[in-house]
Amino acid sequence: MIIDVAVQSEPIVLNGQPAEGSGAVVRFEGRVRPNENGKQIAALVYEAYMPMAQEQMEKILTELAQKWPCQLARVRHRTGVVPVGEAAIIIEVHSRHRTEAFALATAFMDRLKQDVPIWKIDGVPQSS
Amino acid sequence: MIIDVAVQSEPIVLNGQPAEGSGAVVRFEGRVRPNENGKQIAALVYEAYMPMAQEQMEKILTELAQKWPCQLARVRHRTGVVPVGEAAIIIEVHSRHRTEAFALATAFMDRLKQDVPIWKIDGVPQSS
Repeated sequence: MIIDVAVQSEPIVLNGQPAEGSGAVVRFEGRVRPNENGKQIAALVYEAYMPMAQEQMEKILTELAQKWPCQLARVRHRTGVVPVGEAAIIIEVHSRHRTEAFALATAFMDRLKQDVPIWKIDGVPQSS
Repeated sequence: MIIDVAVQSEPIVLNGQPAEGSGAVVRFEGRVRPNENGKQIAALVYEAYMPMAQEQMEKILTELAQKWPCQLARVRHRTGVVPVGEAAIIIEVHSRHRTEAFALATAFMDRLKQDVPIWKIDGVPQSS
C-alpha cells in the first residue's frame, strides 16, 4: 500500500491522482466546528509532537493495511490555528472494493485519537 | 437531514458547500475499474429505471437518517456509458461527528445494490 502522510501548518489541499485500477475512494474530512465544549469559537489550535506524530500515523496505516489491503492511503493533519469550517484532518483511501477502504479509514480515525501525539490545545474565542 | 439526490448521464462533479456547523464529511466514490469479470474493459454501461431509482434513493436516505442523524446527504449516480476511471456514484454525507456519517454512507451503499433499480448492463470492451 502506498502511504503518504504529512503534518502541516498550511490549509489542507488534497487532490491526489487516483491509484491505478482503484474502484473505491473513501475520504473523510474532519472540520473545526463553531462550538467546542459549549463555547462559540473562531478556531482551534492543534499541536503535534514531531516527528513522532507522522511516524506513528505511518505505522498505524502499515498495520491496518495488513488487515484491510488497500492500494493507497493519504493523510494530512494540520497544526497551529485552524479556523472554524476548515479541515484539521483529511484521510483518503483507495482500494479495489469499498469494504476495505471504509474499514481502514474508520479504524485509522479511531487509532489516531488514541495513539498519535497531536492535541487540540485551545479554542480561540469568537471576537464579538 | 437535507437530501439531494440525482441520476444523471453527465460526469459527476460534486463540490457542494459544507452543511452549517458540520464537523465530519464522509465521501465515497465508486469508480469504473479497468477489469470486469476478468475482462479488460474501456467503460461500463449503467441503466436506471426512472423516476423510481431517484425516489428509492431518497427513501433509503430518509430511513437511514432516523438511525444515524446527519445534516446532509448528497448522492449522484451516473447512467449510460461511464469510462474506466470515472465515477459511477458519489455519496457525500455531512454530520456533526464522524460515526454517523460513516455509518450512513456505508449502509446506503449496501442498500443501493439491493434496492435501487440501477444496473450495470454491459462492459464496453477495450479496443486494441
